[in-house]
Amino acid sequence: MTPVKVFGPAQSTNVARVLLCLEEVGAEYEVVNVDFTVMEHKSPEHLKRNPFGQIPAFQDGDLYLFESRAIGKYILRKYKTREADLLREGNLREAAMVDVWTEVETHQYNSAISPIVYECIINPAMRGIPTNQKVVDESAEKLKKVLEVYEARLSQSTYLAGDFVSFADLNHFPYTFYFMGTPYASLFDSYPHVKAWWERLMARPSVKKLAAVMAPQGAVIFKLQ
Amino acid sequence: MTPVKVFGPAQSTNVARVLLCLEEVGAEYEVVNVDFTVMEHKSPEHLKRNPFGQIPAFQDGDLYLFESRAIGKYILRKYKTREADLLREGNLREAAMVDVWTEVETHQYNSAISPIVYECIINPAMRGIPTNQKVVDESAEKLKKVLEVYEARLSQSTYLAGDFVSFADLNHFPYTFYFMGTPYASLFDSYPHVKAWWERLMARPSVKKLAAVMAPQGAVIFKLQ
Repeated sequence: MTPVKVFGPAQSTNVARVLLCLEEVGAEYEVVNVDFTVMEHKSPEHLKRNPFGQIPAFQDGDLYLFESRAIGKYILRKYKTREADLLREGNLREAAMVDVWTEVETHQYNSAISPIVYECIINPAMRGIPTNQKVVDESAEKLKKVLEVYEARLSQSTYLAGDFVSFADLNHFPYTFYFMGTPYASLFDSYPHVKAWWERLMARPSVKKLAAVMAPQGAVIFKLQ
Repeated sequence: MTPVKVFGPAQSTNVARVLLCLEEVGAEYEVVNVDFTVMEHKSPEHLKRNPFGQIPAFQDGDLYLFESRAIGKYILRKYKTREADLLREGNLREAAMVDVWTEVETHQYNSAISPIVYECIINPAMRGIPTNQKVVDESAEKLKKVLEVYEARLSQSTYLAGDFVSFADLNHFPYTFYFMGTPYASLFDSYPHVKAWWERLMARPSVKKLAAVMAPQGAVIFKLQ
């Protein structure tokens, strides 16, 4: 069987989100680079895969998908096993909690943590734009409020959607991984349940493998070291 | 059976998203107002329903949910019938296309159309903040690019995810409905397939019913008339 293809560099947070799902279910896959320096993401070939000219794009035979969370769900449904059931769609309540915390990641967590990663790492290292400290400070305040809610939630259950790891948890990995390379990583120390949850996630073989792929090249791209 | 409860005014776009799902499946429900003028959304009682102190919140017996798209999915799964199968989770490819276009609504469409609604209606009428024309103009340009992609897509299929109406289409209703009350409504005229799709949506009984609920009170709130 031809392995599925993921278009875009593994160091991109949205690509990493997809790769993490593939690693969790143990699917074979191929990563196809998309060269931003020559505007390959806006090429007619790539626009057929993703009409918005963004990454990732995904191919499974004659099926093309885009939008990282949609691709992730497709992967988790297709390769679902009793051991790897990360959407829980067979259980109405569990599926609802996976959806709730997947949406929370999108609308609350990501919008607080991603500006810090952009301002502290991506903008200065990749774009030559100095860190906007005001944006960082405001985002850090916002993130603290979000983490308070997470702390309360994770003192009641081991993972966000309940006492089982799910798609909702996995989605937090890419940005949090880079966030831990910023001067603001210690912000998590005030939230012991959140910190323990993050350490549980980091101990997963899938996450370790992806972190190893992201870190060294990420270091080159983002000058983390 | 006790009807499910939705907390928040029907005129809120995120509340309307949930109500539309309930109307589509013909479920009994009760709308419980949350009074923003007395900060009821930040009350301990509401924070138990939605720890971020936002609307909507949702109650089905002892189950509490928040985040409108997660609530919508729960409703569509719970009340799914052969006629009302708006997530298509039984079909791997169809479900993936529903997810792709649900994500597109979140990340591409909404981020272009919602600032126009805020700047032209909500800010001047509710908050006494004058319209920021620069934001409107930039968002209108962004929206045109998004609508180009939609036009191409909707020239290939009747609805966004395929030749069947889905959750992905429904999610476009609340903001587009208010957008059609702004001076920018004619922007849709340049995209005939998009306009026909919008008219198909507006002809649905569920949408008509909700539009009737949103419009007169929306007129008071947003001074549409």
